Amino acid sequence: MPLKPPVFNPPFNILRASHVVLGVSDLAASRAFYVDCLGMLVTEATKDTLYLRGIEERNHHSIVLRETGESLCYALGYNVAEEEDLDRAAKWFAARGLSAKMVERPHQGRTLLARDARGMPLELYATMWRDMSAIRKYGLHRGARIQRIDHLNCFTDDVQSSFEFYNDLGFRLTEYTDTEDVPPQFWAVWMQRKGNVHDIAFTNGAGPRLHHVGMWTATSLDILHICDVMAAMGYVQNMERGPGRHGISNAFFLYTRDPDGHRVEMFTSDYLTVDHDNEPVRWTLRDPQRQTFWGHPAPKSWFEEGTVFEGCPVRPPVLEAQPIVAR
Amino acid sequence: MPLKPPVFNPPFNILRASHVVLGVSDLAASRAFYVDCLGMLVTEATKDTLYLRGIEERNHHSIVLRETGESLCYALGYNVAEEEDLDRAAKWFAARGLSAKMVERPHQGRTLLARDARGMPLELYATMWRDMSAIRKYGLHRGARIQRIDHLNCFTDDVQSSFEFYNDLGFRLTEYTDTEDVPPQFWAVWMQRKGNVHDIAFTNGAGPRLHHVGMWTATSLDILHICDVMAAMGYVQNMERGPGRHGISNAFFLYTRDPDGHRVEMFTSDYLTVDHDNEPVRWTLRDPQRQTFWGHPAPKSWFEEGTVFEGCPVRPPVLEAQPIVAR
Amino acid sequence: MPLKPPVFNPPFNILRASHVVLGVSDLAASRAFYVDCLGMLVTEATKDTLYLRGIEERNHHSIVLRETGESLCYALGYNVAEEEDLDRAAKWFAARGLSAKMVERPHQGRTLLARDARGMPLELYATMWRDMSAIRKYGLHRGARIQRIDHLNCFTDDVQSSFEFYNDLGFRLTEYTDTEDVPPQFWAVWMQRKGNVHDIAFTNGAGPRLHHVGMWTATSLDILHICDVMAAMGYVQNMERGPGRHGISNAFFLYTRDPDGHRVEMFTSDYLTVDHDNEPVRWTLRDPQRQTFWGHPAPKSWFEEGTVFEGCPVRPPVLEAQPIVAR
Amino acid sequence: MPLKPPVFNPPFNILRASHVVLGVSDLAASRAFYVDCLGMLVTEATKDTLYLRGIEERNHHSIVLRETGESLCYALGYNVAEEEDLDRAAKWFAARGLSAKMVERPHQGRTLLARDARGMPLELYATMWRDMSAIRKYGLHRGARIQRIDHLNCFTDDVQSSFEFYNDLGFRLTEYTDTEDVPPQFWAVWMQRKGNVHDIAFTNGAGPRLHHVGMWTATSLDILHICDVMAAMGYVQNMERGPGRHGISNAFFLYTRDPDGHRVEMFTSDYLTVDHDNEPVRWTLRDPQRQTFWGHPAPKSWFEEGTVFEGCPVRPPVLEAQPIVAR
Repeated sequence: MPLKPPVFNPPFNILRASHVVLGVSDLAASRAFYVDCLGMLVTEATKDTLYLRGIEERNHHSIVLRETGESLCYALGYNVAEEEDLDRAAKWFAARGLSAKMVERPHQGRTLLARDARGMPLELYATMWRDMSAIRKYGLHRGARIQRIDHLNCFTDDVQSSFEFYNDLGFRLTEYTDTEDVPPQFWAVWMQRKGNVHDIAFTNGAGPRLHHVGMWTATSLDILHICDVMAAMGYVQNMERGPGRHGISNAFFLYTRDPDGHRVEMFTSDYLTVDHDNEPVRWTLRDPQRQTFWGHPAPKSWFEEGTVFEGCPVRPPVLEAQPIVAR
Repeated sequence: MPLKPPVFNPPFNILRASHVVLGVSDLAASRAFYVDCLGMLVTEATKDTLYLRGIEERNHHSIVLRETGESLCYALGYNVAEEEDLDRAAKWFAARGLSAKMVERPHQGRTLLARDARGMPLELYATMWRDMSAIRKYGLHRGARIQRIDHLNCFTDDVQSSFEFYNDLGFRLTEYTDTEDVPPQFWAVWMQRKGNVHDIAFTNGAGPRLHHVGMWTATSLDILHICDVMAAMGYVQNMERGPGRHGISNAFFLYTRDPDGHRVEMFTSDYLTVDHDNEPVRWTLRDPQRQTFWGHPAPKSWFEEGTVFEGCPVRPPVLEAQPIVAR
Repeated sequence: MPLKPPVFNPPFNILRASHVVLGVSDLAASRAFYVDCLGMLVTEATKDTLYLRGIEERNHHSIVLRETGESLCYALGYNVAEEEDLDRAAKWFAARGLSAKMVERPHQGRTLLARDARGMPLELYATMWRDMSAIRKYGLHRGARIQRIDHLNCFTDDVQSSFEFYNDLGFRLTEYTDTEDVPPQFWAVWMQRKGNVHDIAFTNGAGPRLHHVGMWTATSLDILHICDVMAAMGYVQNMERGPGRHGISNAFFLYTRDPDGHRVEMFTSDYLTVDHDNEPVRWTLRDPQRQTFWGHPAPKSWFEEGTVFEGCPVRPPVLEAQPIVAR
Repeated sequence: MPLKPPVFNPPFNILRASHVVLGVSDLAASRAFYVDCLGMLVTEATKDTLYLRGIEERNHHSIVLRETGESLCYALGYNVAEEEDLDRAAKWFAARGLSAKMVERPHQGRTLLARDARGMPLELYATMWRDMSAIRKYGLHRGARIQRIDHLNCFTDDVQSSFEFYNDLGFRLTEYTDTEDVPPQFWAVWMQRKGNVHDIAFTNGAGPRLHHVGMWTATSLDILHICDVMAAMGYVQNMERGPGRHGISNAFFLYTRDPDGHRVEMFTSDYLTVDHDNEPVRWTLRDPQRQTFWGHPAPKSWFEEGTVFEGCPVRPPVLEAQPIVAR
């Protein structure tokens, strides 16, 4: 677990995790879940694609659902600072022998499709078509009153490799789990660009796979309310874990599964991490309050299931350590 | 201000304040306010009447809006324990020389229309047509998520007279304001039947007039949310006072005016008063935390305006004392 | 499961469940739990007894902890309307051949010690020494900001017998669980005097035993906060179940175990039941949303463990049906 | 009101507003206010200085109170990325003919004392002595549960000048108020470094003066609770404005005055602004929902009073336009 120093001047400037593109089997069922129940806003709906955003987001989309019939993740989306960053990124990926292709994407213009070191599909863009935020249109706030996308959380077959890749790109480590082996090894890492606990996180497991997309709400009462709404609207089986509190990141969370099994976390209450001398918080794998500061143990599915990335083979994990699983 | 002992075995058994009947000029405008904005549920809408209820209420209605073109209050509604109480009540009113007439009312069957000692119109019934409560239908909760009617608050020209009338009917004094005159006199009284701070309250003023109908919400966050929703939906001028905290009753409150000027309070956080040895809380008129434990002073309109009762002349108040009014 | 009609004119007038008397082994440990963590107020502490109350309570105590070295429940306390009710009660118990003895109790004066039909120890009093409520002393509110005792929940070996006993005393059925046998039988009953869902509840099981004392908080955020506080102060093992939502009573709950294993529920969000035509809500034992509208299944301990009553043998339950238990 | 383009590569890297240094007349009175009432944590108390921080802060201090007997602001503190930024900053200030002196400060090491274009005293440092965050020590959370400093808000005699100075330093404009003159002029600007709505804001007025320090809380319920606590603890006169909602920044706010008249805002619910194509939100001075999305109008004191900066003369404002003031 060599902790590498943070990179404050990365080769190109990723600002934050901005969106995720998921394949679904039935757009109407997805819309019922994300819009009618969770309360996300529809920016645009085409015959085969639904573009969703949270109430504070001006971006055209933070969740894109494509009716492909395959329960895959097609891309993890990141916003870069300016157009030139796309060119710098293209060169950087190419120099490392990684796939990188510039395309045009609706609503986000010139977009770099690339693969990270483990093969996860990324799409980078500089400018997205922007709309009015609905943050002050309180009459439209429904369900969980999701404000915005916060982070992407993935299984990786090699946490150290994933850590180093994103560390090189300027993602800064905020919290991590240590196996307590000799020498110590990363079990999981939380890394940020935008100044809170994470834009992306990696946990050891069969991967790469998407564990969940994390959506931010303003308060824990919004999360309690969506529990009530989900239970009332027939989605009680889609509530996989929580509500509860993680030790890690101090998150108050609810994990849900959408109709295709994609995992959506609603979460709140992490903290600011912009100082350059911010020390990562270390947790040990055996610390029970790491995963569950309080609340019921996570079910087996939460540890084992995830969304496969399009075109990216799943490999067994490097480490064999095991966290505390629900009985 | 002779404090009379509570009457634990009243001549007939009123259970609680149950509804109010208001005249409006435009049912569509009223519906926009009460339903689209505040989030009340519509049990029934006829050509000229809208029957509304809160999310926990099984009763057919707690607010009845009749498009009469006159901004009047037609009745304060009370639920009695059983049919026989209506007969007992009819006799009791008659014996006192007060108006009392038995009629049939839609959804509430045999109903006694009566006048109290000051002339306020009452309607008493024993059994209302009941529906499923929406308390667990969380997908339908909107706006202030109003749970139920809580109380009726009136100006009276003679607080002592109103106090004695309702005290005789078993309403118990929970809090009161004393003018500090010699001898002391009531400025205002809060009286209950259902076990919290009030079913009805009276304040000295030109009256009788309805000051407000008080609707109960589960939490103060519901009241903050409706502030946001009202401001976002163009009802900022309808927010008359609050949010704030009264010393009296510990209520967290927001006072709004509906499109016809009827005052609707959303309130929460009072307390249980069922013990027979519960001592009334005394406040003095000069205590600034009586009206406003914190928050801005009430505007002049809040002290002066109210809804006139149908068929009930407004008289100047007996007392001339003045509470603390907003600068 | 013969549903008996409610008794609106009971032989004596119990107003509400008012307190519970529990035996503990170490008052300092109990104080750390109830006062330093949960935030209850101490009215009085003697060498061997701790008298606690919630922030809205004027009563001297709602939880009495006696350092007897035995983890027993010594009494379920009820408030009656007036002194004469104690005499009426004494006669009524005697006429039924049930134990009943008048004693003096500190802070509550003349007190009737009695046993109910299943042998559970009761203590009835008319007037308790009263202090100022701390409801407006917000600087003293800590932990769960518990406002008041709400209810007592017990295992009984014979639900039908317990139901009938309390029904005769004017407790009204608000919700119940039906085994769906032919003929149907009660699995559990919720019964009230004070106008919300319950003052006492009974569930089929080895009994009589106290399942829990239910303490009311104003909002669900208070309950979330106490989860955080308990986890931070080393009480995570004392969090037995929740937070979650029951279908029954719409309660948002957290079940905790005190240092002696007594179960304390913090709960909020039930509803008003004062109407005499209020129909009991029926649930079937197989309905998964009965126990858990959402949230993790209850652990085995929650179904099996309880506090034994002093001097009251525990008998196996009459029914053998089984609710849905956590895997 | 020439809107200048944002500067993404500033001459040195300020990360965020980190602290404020205030003079007080009685440290005991200040401690009662900030610690016993608001609930801030004491990192260190010397004979004449009190160092305070919020519950998520690892920094040694975000509010420093010095018992100087003068109600002044001695410095606005900013965190820079690394030690070299201090040297770059020293040169940059010197090159502009602005005061800049490197000193040692307890707990923050090498510190650059400087003056901005209007004469406001700044102190910049790279590394502060860090302690454990109390974010998970929930048993210590009290009062408003203030999490961290968020921003500094100042009157300036020349908004355009202040805007340009901070724009040059990489502060990005997120919202602004326009006088609607021809040509348009800035009335007020909100500018950020850390990715939410502001680290510093300027409003036209007699200045420079500190209008308030803004402290962030997780939820609006924390702000309601501190209203109750302040009123209960005798600080009702210290509640100057609110609670209410600004249109600007979507902030839910409460403005308080400390015992020396320094203004402390508790606020929550703004939004993320890290995207480089984030467009500033424009408000007009006449828009009533700019200042008060809902809530009572601000009192005169809120528009007129502020804390003078040490060694910095107050000048009349350049503009004469007037916002909407409370009647």
